[in-house]
Amino acid sequence: MTEPKTRTVHPLHWDGQSLKILDQRQLPDHCVYESYHDAAGVAQAIATMRVRGAPAIGIAAAYGVVLSANRHYAADARRWRQPVAEDTAVLAQSRPTAVNLFTALAQMKMALAQPESSPASLLACAQKIHADDLAANRRMGALGAAVLGGCKGLLTHCNTGALATGGYGTALGVIRSCYHRQPVKVYAGETRPWLQGARLTAWELAQDGIAVTLIADSAAAWLMRSGAVDWVVVGADRIAVNGDTANKIGTYSLAVLARHHGVKFMVVAPTTTLDWDLATGDGIDIEQRAARELLPACYPDDGLVTAWNPVFDVTPAELIDVIVTERGIVLHPSLNGVKELA
Amino acid sequence: MTEPKTRTVHPLHWDGQSLKILDQRQLPDHCVYESYHDAAGVAQAIATMRVRGAPAIGIAAAYGVVLSANRHYAADARRWRQPVAEDTAVLAQSRPTAVNLFTALAQMKMALAQPESSPASLLACAQKIHADDLAANRRMGALGAAVLGGCKGLLTHCNTGALATGGYGTALGVIRSCYHRQPVKVYAGETRPWLQGARLTAWELAQDGIAVTLIADSAAAWLMRSGAVDWVVVGADRIAVNGDTANKIGTYSLAVLARHHGVKFMVVAPTTTLDWDLATGDGIDIEQRAARELLPACYPDDGLVTAWNPVFDVTPAELIDVIVTERGIVLHPSLNGVKELA
Repeated sequence: MTEPKTRTVHPLHWDGQSLKILDQRQLPDHCVYESYHDAAGVAQAIATMRVRGAPAIGIAAAYGVVLSANRHYAADARRWRQPVAEDTAVLAQSRPTAVNLFTALAQMKMALAQPESSPASLLACAQKIHADDLAANRRMGALGAAVLGGCKGLLTHCNTGALATGGYGTALGVIRSCYHRQPVKVYAGETRPWLQGARLTAWELAQDGIAVTLIADSAAAWLMRSGAVDWVVVGADRIAVNGDTANKIGTYSLAVLARHHGVKFMVVAPTTTLDWDLATGDGIDIEQRAARELLPACYPDDGLVTAWNPVFDVTPAELIDVIVTERGIVLHPSLNGVKELA
Repeated sequence: MTEPKTRTVHPLHWDGQSLKILDQRQLPDHCVYESYHDAAGVAQAIATMRVRGAPAIGIAAAYGVVLSANRHYAADARRWRQPVAEDTAVLAQSRPTAVNLFTALAQMKMALAQPESSPASLLACAQKIHADDLAANRRMGALGAAVLGGCKGLLTHCNTGALATGGYGTALGVIRSCYHRQPVKVYAGETRPWLQGARLTAWELAQDGIAVTLIADSAAAWLMRSGAVDWVVVGADRIAVNGDTANKIGTYSLAVLARHHGVKFMVVAPTTTLDWDLATGDGIDIEQRAARELLPACYPDDGLVTAWNPVFDVTPAELIDVIVTERGIVLHPSLNGVKELA
């Protein structure tokens, strides 16, 4: 069965001079692109979650380096590399957990360090990062869908779709591919506190003609007990060599609940999400965001009501049944981690 | 250590002629009491969750019968019992899951059926239901706090405090009592979709001078893994004879996660929450509320995005370490259910 033409939106668009970023905080009510002309603006767009999703922020940061190169090369074509390196460092500070950001910036730094480097060569590098991510997503979609086989119902978390990537999506790419082979019942957790599931995943799937049922995150266990889902399918922000996986807060919860209910658990991520310097998940820096994201507005900042707001959690490899990457599938990553993908 | 004078608010107040109900949907921004003069209004207040919490809706319904008796007795002092019985049936339709509603209405029907019954005797019955609930809460607070012993951190869900009961609270009453013996770190899940944890529990605890840390419901597993909590302490809407417990959606999830992490799990409920007609939790009617409570407003009613919105789930007895009632404590309810409390 051929896949129907999709109306998938994209989080990023390079228009030749500026980077257009879809402000995902306004979705699904408004679909607004804003133009960015410098690296500081892109760093701010990442930090404020206008663009989010591990692969997408890596790609956005790469284009941020291009914007920096264009600007500084125009100002001084002999001494442009140092200020670009400084802007790259600013971009690296925008968010801490997703490794794709650092992987993409490392590729851009290598391109910058070439003797023949130029704004054009950096643009080519950013566009390659973008295109590679899209191609990886397509490949993962096919591989993951093959694993899902006779799956009748699945649950996903956060948004790992076209909006979170160079296009198509990681976990949501697998779900797209699976759905086009054989319709499957798709459940999405709303994903507090930013509601990426309710605002982004549901919207994006509906754009593509895929029916989706939202649940409160806390209803996942009860849903699993009902027998409605065979698989949990999620993305990743960073994967350690042993297979431990950082992803949106609540992913670890789903992994524990899935194991209890005999539901299988799949992580989908491009190999740019693998952190070869990290032996286990214990070393992952978990971003803590403002308590205010959870607190009703009327509680004072210095009052008795506070909030604990980690954005990510780490799922140990032993709770993961399969990791899908564009280089291949790792079954039971707790046995040998992801080394076979090196 | 004596307990300090509390500034605890109450969800209900009988002023001699009407029932004043705190509109909990407006908390914590506004603390507004509305007056109700007939049973239909009280039934509506329950159905729309202006008043919620299993014990509180039982008490509200009892006063609703009193309002009906006053009205119909004034209209016709000889033929008032039949219309009161009809209003009682309307009140019983307001919400399906919490058994306290039906327990309270059964008590009122018995009072109504007495040969000497009068509006005054029904008021006395409603006030006894109210006073008994408060006394039960105080007793459970003391019993539960004794069990918590050296607890350093605990997590609760939804709102089971003064706002949910005749006063003081069930699970939150235990937490109050525990805190006054020895300060303990209190975490509360925000409790989607109505955010009773964020809006009610946090507010109510702060009113009482108790510090509380909110978490997204999906962060509970990661919190448990951090070692921050020794106990989960929750209320109940209905408890079957075998100990299976219906409570706010997400409770079952916490029970599974607690068991996985070696965290203990306590249910606190007055014996009015026990359903002696129900052998196991399989027979509990789980209220499904509107998808709209979860869906962003921009999704059309007939679109591809829907929601599954069960309000309660059932925690099997084998995941519960202790059930605390005003009649005593049941350890390991999976062994013999709650029969010893009969």
